[in-house]
Amino acid sequence: MISKPRFSTESGRLEAFSDGVIAVIITIMVLELRPPDGTGLGSLHALIPTLSAYVLSFVFIGIYWNNHHHMLRASDGIDGRVMWANLHLLFWLSLVPFTTAWLGRNAFAPVPTALYGFVLLMDAIAFTILQAALVQVNGPGGAFAKAVDVDVKGKVSIAIYIGAIAISFLSTIAADALFVAVAILWIVPDRRFEPVIAERSDGEKSADAEGGRTAR
Amino acid sequence: MISKPRFSTESGRLEAFSDGVIAVIITIMVLELRPPDGTGLGSLHALIPTLSAYVLSFVFIGIYWNNHHHMLRASDGIDGRVMWANLHLLFWLSLVPFTTAWLGRNAFAPVPTALYGFVLLMDAIAFTILQAALVQVNGPGGAFAKAVDVDVKGKVSIAIYIGAIAISFLSTIAADALFVAVAILWIVPDRRFEPVIAERSDGEKSADAEGGRTAR
Amino acid sequence: MISKPRFSTESGRLEAFSDGVIAVIITIMVLELRPPDGTGLGSLHALIPTLSAYVLSFVFIGIYWNNHHHMLRASDGIDGRVMWANLHLLFWLSLVPFTTAWLGRNAFAPVPTALYGFVLLMDAIAFTILQAALVQVNGPGGAFAKAVDVDVKGKVSIAIYIGAIAISFLSTIAADALFVAVAILWIVPDRRFEPVIAERSDGEKSADAEGGRTAR
Amino acid sequence: MISKPRFSTESGRLEAFSDGVIAVIITIMVLELRPPDGTGLGSLHALIPTLSAYVLSFVFIGIYWNNHHHMLRASDGIDGRVMWANLHLLFWLSLVPFTTAWLGRNAFAPVPTALYGFVLLMDAIAFTILQAALVQVNGPGGAFAKAVDVDVKGKVSIAIYIGAIAISFLSTIAADALFVAVAILWIVPDRRFEPVIAERSDGEKSADAEGGRTAR
Repeated sequence: MISKPRFSTESGRLEAFSDGVIAVIITIMVLELRPPDGTGLGSLHALIPTLSAYVLSFVFIGIYWNNHHHMLRASDGIDGRVMWANLHLLFWLSLVPFTTAWLGRNAFAPVPTALYGFVLLMDAIAFTILQAALVQVNGPGGAFAKAVDVDVKGKVSIAIYIGAIAISFLSTIAADALFVAVAILWIVPDRRFEPVIAERSDGEKSADAEGGRTAR
Repeated sequence: MISKPRFSTESGRLEAFSDGVIAVIITIMVLELRPPDGTGLGSLHALIPTLSAYVLSFVFIGIYWNNHHHMLRASDGIDGRVMWANLHLLFWLSLVPFTTAWLGRNAFAPVPTALYGFVLLMDAIAFTILQAALVQVNGPGGAFAKAVDVDVKGKVSIAIYIGAIAISFLSTIAADALFVAVAILWIVPDRRFEPVIAERSDGEKSADAEGGRTAR
Repeated sequence: MISKPRFSTESGRLEAFSDGVIAVIITIMVLELRPPDGTGLGSLHALIPTLSAYVLSFVFIGIYWNNHHHMLRASDGIDGRVMWANLHLLFWLSLVPFTTAWLGRNAFAPVPTALYGFVLLMDAIAFTILQAALVQVNGPGGAFAKAVDVDVKGKVSIAIYIGAIAISFLSTIAADALFVAVAILWIVPDRRFEPVIAERSDGEKSADAEGGRTAR
Repeated sequence: MISKPRFSTESGRLEAFSDGVIAVIITIMVLELRPPDGTGLGSLHALIPTLSAYVLSFVFIGIYWNNHHHMLRASDGIDGRVMWANLHLLFWLSLVPFTTAWLGRNAFAPVPTALYGFVLLMDAIAFTILQAALVQVNGPGGAFAKAVDVDVKGKVSIAIYIGAIAISFLSTIAADALFVAVAILWIVPDRRFEPVIAERSDGEKSADAEGGRTAR
C-alpha cells in the first residue's frame, strides 16, 4: 500500500463521538416539549406546533445520522481536515434544537421559519464540506469520489432550502411544505456508498484471508 | 454465503447510537425531579408522584434497552428499513420523559394517565414493527423468524395498554396497576433470542476455526 | 469449556450503555450551576455550596464509573440478573443529581444532607448487589468470587454512610466530613480485580496463541 | 515485553467514557441559547453574545476532544493515575458550559471574562497533568515522552490564558481576542503524536504478522 502521511485509518472514535453528540442533540429537543398546565385533552392542543417541529427535526437529525454513518463507512480513513469538517457539521446540527424551539413557539412567524431553514441549509453545506474533505482523503479519482461525484440530491436539497427561506416571508406553510419535501427526498438511505462499502468489505475479507488479521 | 444486496452485517453503530439515545432518555427524565423549596421531610412528600412515575418509566426504558439489545444480537444484519424502524422506536421512546413529567404532576388525572399509556402503546407497536423489519432482513423462514413467531408477551402487552388507556377514564389507579403488570411481565429478559444468539456464536466460532478470523 | 446456559460473555454493550448513562449523569449535574445574576466576584460566593456539592458528587460518580469498569473487566460474562442489578445501580446513581441539587441549595439543612447520604448508601448497596450477581455468574468458587470475598471497603463505606445519615441531624458538617472520608477511601482504584483481570488476559492470550483468534 | 504491574493496555473504555462526557458537555451548552420572546430579526440581536460565547467554547471543547483523542492513541496504556487525571480534566471541561453561560449573558463584564479564562487555564493545566501521567505510564525515556518533551504550544497557551485573565479587568475585548488566538493556535491537530501512533501501528502490524492476532 502506498504510504499516505498524516492519514489515519481509525475513524472509529470519530464515529463514536459523532454518535454521542447526535444522540444528545436528538434527545434534548424533547426537553422543549413541556407538560401543559391543564390536564384536559384541550391543553395538549397548544403543543401541536411544538410537537410537529420536534417530529420534523427528529427526522432531519435521523437522516443526518444515517447518511453520516454510510458516508464514513465508505471512507478509507480520516485526517485532521475531516475531523474539523465533522466538528463543523456537528456545530450546525447542534443549533437545530434552538431553531426547533423557536419555530415550535412561533409556527406561523416568517423569521423563525426562515431561521429554521437557514440552519438546515448550513447543515447541508457542512455535510457537503465533510464529503469534499473525505474525497481528498480517499483520493480524487477513487471509488469514494465517484460515488459522490454527481450528488443530485445534495444540490437539490440546498436549492430547496434557499427557496424555502425566501418563501418563508410570503407563506410559512409553503416553506414548511418544502422542508417536508426535503425530508421525504432523504428518507431513503443514501445508496451511493453501498458499492464502495461492499468493495471495502471484500477487500477486508481478502486481506483477512491473506494475512490472517481482521481490519476491525 | 449467498449474496444479499443492500444488506449490511454491521449493526454495531446502530446499537451504539441507540444506546446513546436511550441513555440520554433514561437520564434526562430525572431533570423533572426538581429539588423542593422546603428542607423538611414533608417537602419530599409532594415529590412522591413524580418519583413514582420516574421509577415506572425507568423500568420501562430499561426493559426496552434490554430487549433491543437481545433482539439485535440475534439478528444477522440490518438494512435501511431496519434503520428507520429503529429511529421510529427511538422517537416514541423519546416522548416518555414528556408523558412521565405530565403524569408525575397530575398523577390522578385521566388524560395524562391515558397519554402515558398511549406512548407506551406506540413504543410497543414500534418495537413490533422493528421486529418485523428484522424478520425480513434475516429471512422469513430462518431462526430469527421462528424465535419471534408467536410473540405472546408482545401481543398481551399491546392488549393491556389498550385496556389501560380505556380504563384511565374510570380509574387512574387501575390503569397504573395495568402499567405495573406489563412491567412485571417483561422484567424477565426475553429468552426467545437466546437459542438464536447461541447458534450465531457457534457459527462465528466455526468460521474462526476455519478462516482464522474474528467476527468482531 | 463447560456449557453455561443462559449466560453471555458479551458484556460490551452493557458497559457501553452504563458508560452513556454515567456520562450523562455526571454532566447534567452541572446544569444546576446556574450563572449568577450579578457580575461581580461576590456574586460567585453564593455558588460555593452548589459547587462544593457538585465536586463531591462528581468524585463519587467518577469512583463508581472507575470501580464499575474494573469489576466488569474482571468478570467472565453477564446474565439477565446482572443486567437488572446493573440497571438498579444506574437508577440510584441517576438520583445523585437530584440530591446534589437539593444539598447545594440547602448545605446546612439536616434532611437534604441525610437524603444525600441515603442515596449514596443505596448506590453502595446496589453496587454490592451487582457484585453478588457477578459472583453467581462467575461461579462462587472462582477467581472473581475470591477477589470480592472480604470487601472491607464496601462494608466500611456502608457503615459510614449509615453513620453520616444519623449524624446529619446533629451536625451537617460532620456528615459532610464523613462523605469526604468515604470518597478518599475509594479514590485509590479497586486493586482487588487486578489479579483476576491479569489472569483473564493471560487466558485470552493463550487462547489466541492456540486458536489464532482474538477475544475482542 | 517487560512486565509492568498495575498497568492496563485497555484504554478503550476510558476513551468511550470521555467521549460520552465531552459529547454531553459540547451539546448541553446549546441549552443556554433560549428562543427569544419576539419573532423579528431584531429579537435575535440579543443572542449574539450568547451565540459567540457558544461558538468559542464549542471550538475549545472540539480542540480538547481532538487532542485527547490523539494523545490517548499515542499511549501504550493507562493506569489508575491516568484515570484520575482524566476525570480531573473532564471535571474542568464540565465547568465550561457554566462559564460560557455567564460570559454570554455579560459579554463585557470583567469577572465573567476572567472566570471564563480561569476555567480554560485549568483545562490546560489538567491536560498537562494527564500528559505527565501518560508519560509515566509509557516510560520517561520512550517515544511518547519524546513527543511531548518540549510542548511549546501547551506552555504558550497557559501563558496567554494567564495574560487574558489579568487583561480582563482592563479590556474584555482584548481578553476575548487572546482566547481566540489560543483557539487558532490549536485548530491545527496536534502533530506531535503522529510518529508515535504510526510506530505503534507498525508494531501492531508486525505483532499481527508474527502472532496472527489483532491488537484491536
